[in-house]
Amino acid sequence: MSETEEKAQFEESFGSLAAIGRNEVSGGWTRFAWTPEDAEARVWFIRTARAAGAKVEADRDGNLWALAGPAGAADRLVATGSHLDTVRNGGAFDGALGVVSGLLALRRIVASGIALKRGIAVIAFVDEEGGRFGTPTLGSELLCGEREPADVLDRADPRGVTMREAMDAAGVNTGNLGGDEARLARLDAYVELHVEQGRGLADLGSPLAVGTGVWPHGRWRFDAVGEANHAGTTRLADRRDPMLVLADAVAEARRLAGGLQAVATVGRVEVAPNVTNAVPERAAFWVDVRAPDEATLERLVAELGRAVRLSAARNGVQVEVARESRSAGTSFDGPLLRRLGDAVEAVGATPCRLPTAAGHDAAVLARHLPAAMLFVRNPTGTSHSPAEHASTEDCVVGVRALAAALQDLACR
Amino acid sequence: MSETEEKAQFEESFGSLAAIGRNEVSGGWTRFAWTPEDAEARVWFIRTARAAGAKVEADRDGNLWALAGPAGAADRLVATGSHLDTVRNGGAFDGALGVVSGLLALRRIVASGIALKRGIAVIAFVDEEGGRFGTPTLGSELLCGEREPADVLDRADPRGVTMREAMDAAGVNTGNLGGDEARLARLDAYVELHVEQGRGLADLGSPLAVGTGVWPHGRWRFDAVGEANHAGTTRLADRRDPMLVLADAVAEARRLAGGLQAVATVGRVEVAPNVTNAVPERAAFWVDVRAPDEATLERLVAELGRAVRLSAARNGVQVEVARESRSAGTSFDGPLLRRLGDAVEAVGATPCRLPTAAGHDAAVLARHLPAAMLFVRNPTGTSHSPAEHASTEDCVVGVRALAAALQDLACR
Repeated sequence: MSETEEKAQFEESFGSLAAIGRNEVSGGWTRFAWTPEDAEARVWFIRTARAAGAKVEADRDGNLWALAGPAGAADRLVATGSHLDTVRNGGAFDGALGVVSGLLALRRIVASGIALKRGIAVIAFVDEEGGRFGTPTLGSELLCGEREPADVLDRADPRGVTMREAMDAAGVNTGNLGGDEARLARLDAYVELHVEQGRGLADLGSPLAVGTGVWPHGRWRFDAVGEANHAGTTRLADRRDPMLVLADAVAEARRLAGGLQAVATVGRVEVAPNVTNAVPERAAFWVDVRAPDEATLERLVAELGRAVRLSAARNGVQVEVARESRSAGTSFDGPLLRRLGDAVEAVGATPCRLPTAAGHDAAVLARHLPAAMLFVRNPTGTSHSPAEHASTEDCVVGVRALAAALQDLACR
Repeated sequence: MSETEEKAQFEESFGSLAAIGRNEVSGGWTRFAWTPEDAEARVWFIRTARAAGAKVEADRDGNLWALAGPAGAADRLVATGSHLDTVRNGGAFDGALGVVSGLLALRRIVASGIALKRGIAVIAFVDEEGGRFGTPTLGSELLCGEREPADVLDRADPRGVTMREAMDAAGVNTGNLGGDEARLARLDAYVELHVEQGRGLADLGSPLAVGTGVWPHGRWRFDAVGEANHAGTTRLADRRDPMLVLADAVAEARRLAGGLQAVATVGRVEVAPNVTNAVPERAAFWVDVRAPDEATLERLVAELGRAVRLSAARNGVQVEVARESRSAGTSFDGPLLRRLGDAVEAVGATPCRLPTAAGHDAAVLARHLPAAMLFVRNPTGTSHSPAEHASTEDCVVGVRALAAALQDLACR
């Protein structure tokens, strides 16, 4: 296959998925789990996988598996994959690039007719972003038995639809969710290809990197409650204004993250009653924290909590802090990293290594089997935004490296 | 009438209005202009005014007028009044107390049979809070010719209903809105009674104060636009985070207000996309500023604007500032203030004088005729909140003083 053909094949496949869930006004993509857009993307997956020569099945948690390879070898699998869902108004590449590349790599291996010792699986994990119910990497965590279904099924989206209702409506048997050790035990390795979410590769001048691990990560919700009052007639000294606590928290989170070489983000706030002419009664805000190691993460959160409590006391505001999620850091499998590096070199690229501060299904699977990642250069570094991008040239190099790695792993 | 009867009469009248628009869960009141709750309150006004011996008419802007007095004298009027609408989840007293007290004062004067030289008007101004369309003191501004109807009729509420649609649906002829000089010229004085919105009277130990004027006031909208990005993978140095500008603005507004003996409030924010795991693209926030004089207000806003622009530049964020409203300060009519002081003394209270930082229809009317206010003690000082309060004892003293003032003005 010529490079021109490879590019055309990639663009045709990627473009057909990117046609789903795009908002023409904002230019962004929104495919939340178990919505009509998600269902359409799942149909796309099933059709594309079948056309590539795979059979498709759903596991008990609703993750889709495209399977190919010698009939007798199908009890052992080498897997790749990613996810079809997006954040609200996200980009075209996050998740989608890994699924498209996986199916193209599978198609290439099947078409080559090479004799495999293991089957190839391309997995589309459900609800990786958690944008609808606040449950990131849900599909892989359920599969790996890391999430108790009862703990999440009653969560409701902003319209009041529960996860149970949404999954039941989609046809998933929510009474049968949970870990599947037998299925997991068939996987000898998992390699997830993903668009890079920073400027690491752009700075290095290389199209591909091997992902070495994922930073520890947590999300905390702060609820600051003061007293609603008139914006004109309430003296400053009489105010109990939770917005001042929010402001202190935003500034302090940034200051602490800068000092600790970590990242901290306040991306979501909810203020009540949220009117121009009243001191607010409540300000809720969420802080997303990621750091190179556990100790740094814990120190940042502890110092932030202290600063917020001091600010609250100073302003006559009550504050409560709740941990909404917390994931340990992950170092990917050493031998697998070396073999991925070989695959990257085999397609003519420099095998750079980069950690990431983003959560991925690969980090969940890495706690159960050898797993690792490949990152494709993102010239702007922008992610979770319509501006997220990777060139077709780089994507094609990614497909080649992924196919080389899967073939190598499946032939041993 | 005994004090027990006066209290019972007040509680019956106040209670029947407070039954409208109350949310049983939050305990607060929401009566936005031209909603079913507003319509119900207007029916209440018409019935209560008629029962008190007044006839009721609407002016061309939808304000309701209860009129009583000698037939021949009705071309000259002494007026009181306030408004029936509330902020979202506000208290029972703001607006309502002035209307109830006005109608009770009118009833008392009519029942006394005293010969008046001028008629008495109790006016329920529409849309004083501006909670639905962002148009405070709209009814009085339209009546006084200070607002061009075309400038506001296309404003939409959060559900997309325009003011024109809402007023047309309520039966107001929106083609006929605007100033009514002839009607205004009939008014010799306007006295608005209002629950105090701070702790001035509670600190002074007095049930009533004469309001001396209204501070200058303005509202500004700030739009900070950065770049949506991944909360994990975007290095701090690569971020263009508008939330940091919001935080700086909140802190700086408070600092400047404290130094200038003014008040500044950030009560409303809108963040997009407002998700936990993304650096936001946009943060809009509104700053409400009030100060004892024009120069102080302008200085505060100018210094805040400079600080926000510096923060925006530091954070790679674009910021735009738009003035949403601006009202000049008002000093109420000197001779009228003295006569109100006499009326307060006549009912046995100390005639304290207090300015206010809240906007009122009285401040609009004061630009066209002698106008002033009476404030009734609010023990908590809380306002625009369900906790806003005044004791029945104090309210009855307020009705007496208002009746004495109106009678005095109408008999001269």
